[in-house]
Amino acid sequence: MTFTVFGTGAVGAYYGARLARAGHTVHFLVRSDYEVIKEKGLTVLSPEGDIYLDKPSVFNSPEAVPPSDVILIALKTTGNKNLKEQLKPLIARNTAILILQNGMGMEEEMASWFPSNPVLGGMCFICSRKKAPALIEHLDKGAVTLGCGDERDRALRDSLYSLFNEAGIETSVVENLREARWRKLLWNIPYNGLSVVLNSDTRELMTTEGARELVEGLMEEVLAGAAACRCPIEREAMEKMLHYTEIMTPYEPSMKQDYMAGRPMEIEYMYEIPLAQALENGCDMKKVRMLKDQLHFIQNRNLQKH
Amino acid sequence: MTFTVFGTGAVGAYYGARLARAGHTVHFLVRSDYEVIKEKGLTVLSPEGDIYLDKPSVFNSPEAVPPSDVILIALKTTGNKNLKEQLKPLIARNTAILILQNGMGMEEEMASWFPSNPVLGGMCFICSRKKAPALIEHLDKGAVTLGCGDERDRALRDSLYSLFNEAGIETSVVENLREARWRKLLWNIPYNGLSVVLNSDTRELMTTEGARELVEGLMEEVLAGAAACRCPIEREAMEKMLHYTEIMTPYEPSMKQDYMAGRPMEIEYMYEIPLAQALENGCDMKKVRMLKDQLHFIQNRNLQKH
Repeated sequence: MTFTVFGTGAVGAYYGARLARAGHTVHFLVRSDYEVIKEKGLTVLSPEGDIYLDKPSVFNSPEAVPPSDVILIALKTTGNKNLKEQLKPLIARNTAILILQNGMGMEEEMASWFPSNPVLGGMCFICSRKKAPALIEHLDKGAVTLGCGDERDRALRDSLYSLFNEAGIETSVVENLREARWRKLLWNIPYNGLSVVLNSDTRELMTTEGARELVEGLMEEVLAGAAACRCPIEREAMEKMLHYTEIMTPYEPSMKQDYMAGRPMEIEYMYEIPLAQALENGCDMKKVRMLKDQLHFIQNRNLQKH
Repeated sequence: MTFTVFGTGAVGAYYGARLARAGHTVHFLVRSDYEVIKEKGLTVLSPEGDIYLDKPSVFNSPEAVPPSDVILIALKTTGNKNLKEQLKPLIARNTAILILQNGMGMEEEMASWFPSNPVLGGMCFICSRKKAPALIEHLDKGAVTLGCGDERDRALRDSLYSLFNEAGIETSVVENLREARWRKLLWNIPYNGLSVVLNSDTRELMTTEGARELVEGLMEEVLAGAAACRCPIEREAMEKMLHYTEIMTPYEPSMKQDYMAGRPMEIEYMYEIPLAQALENGCDMKKVRMLKDQLHFIQNRNLQKH
């Protein structure tokens, strides 16, 4: 199988580099760092062994990328507004689309844009960041959970599962993609938003007295929202996630990284869509809503200042 | 009537100075700035005309203060832990206690400590701050709303009402002190907490796109909490308060001032007690609870750092 990484940031570059190192053809579509990667190659620093791609197949426009079997969507959801038009040159009759973004509702949107193409979702549990142009630092984790919205894409999901694992990406599959998205939000909703609003990181959010109430209060609402959307998640998942966060390397979640770098934050797909879906099903996640409003405030204030 | 100001900060010094300027005997109990006030006097800068007390009656221990008819409690509620013991030397048989603090539950607590003394509450709508030791800056407003928990104290409340107005303090009375405390919280709960958590002031909280949802979401919960506690407040009060905040001089609320000065924040009386009272009456103010948890996080993180 051949791959195109759409959005070569901290997530896309990591998975693309792993696949390329395993011998697969991987094209990288790059916006801002095209010249640097072209010149210097692509480096991924990792505790599991650094990866250096000397001459990656890199492009700066969708039209230039050769056809491939799978498009990995790894740009931020804040770029989804123009995604449909940008993807068109890349999507042939059987091109599969694997969405590695955070949040909710991306697969449904993608399926509405390209109704005859396979659309899969991948939840990435990874701590990574861009240190400099063409230089990605992988800090911890890296597992991917694969799911599909349409039963007909199961065989493809299972092929990718095997291929990813063989390429050194710890991968699992889920039967219910929407439930898996809610599970991911159980972490993303509290830690991303609070790290921005409270100018904090996972270590402070786990060790400061009283922080547990804050994180748990949000997680409990996400559990209620998921249950209202007929994706019930067992309560122990919350305890596991808290424990997992306690033992992982202290981390600035992606939204905090975006905020600090002056990039827009992924408020729509990570907060607004889950809030709307839960509300449609009779569950108002009030604390989540307030956190969303706080993030909007912070983002809008910065926009008004600059 | 003679007065003792217990806690000569931005609020106590302002009202004490107004009363002293009107010719009343006012003793000031001062903790940290005693020497400076003794030497330089007390200055209140005000758009309504500065007040300078050349030789105020100032004391640095409760035991030293001469008897007076009314004790104005104007220290922060964060100092209430030791208040009972500190007040004892000041409280004679008929000494009245007027609580000018922010929050809820102070009058009930005071009445439990001194059950035979008149206890009144005063809601101060004032923007003021301490600029330097012995130097208070009055920025805007200054009205006081007086109420009493016990019907027998009405005559005293009305006497103070007249005396305050004659001293140039715009004063009104209310029949239901608990309702008036809830009304004050309608402002205090959103603006104090958000100004700290979002590192903001009233201007940003009124003019940033999306901020209105944030403030209103909290205010709506306070209305619900008040109603649950049998202190229903008409919805128009919320609109009035938003408008009032829009037109007032931009202001860092008292909790923001405390936070920036490294003082503890008034979380207990301004958030915890109202939250507990509403919950006892079946109303969980979830957004308010999250704001309280965020304030605790910020306070505890700072304590752990220092």
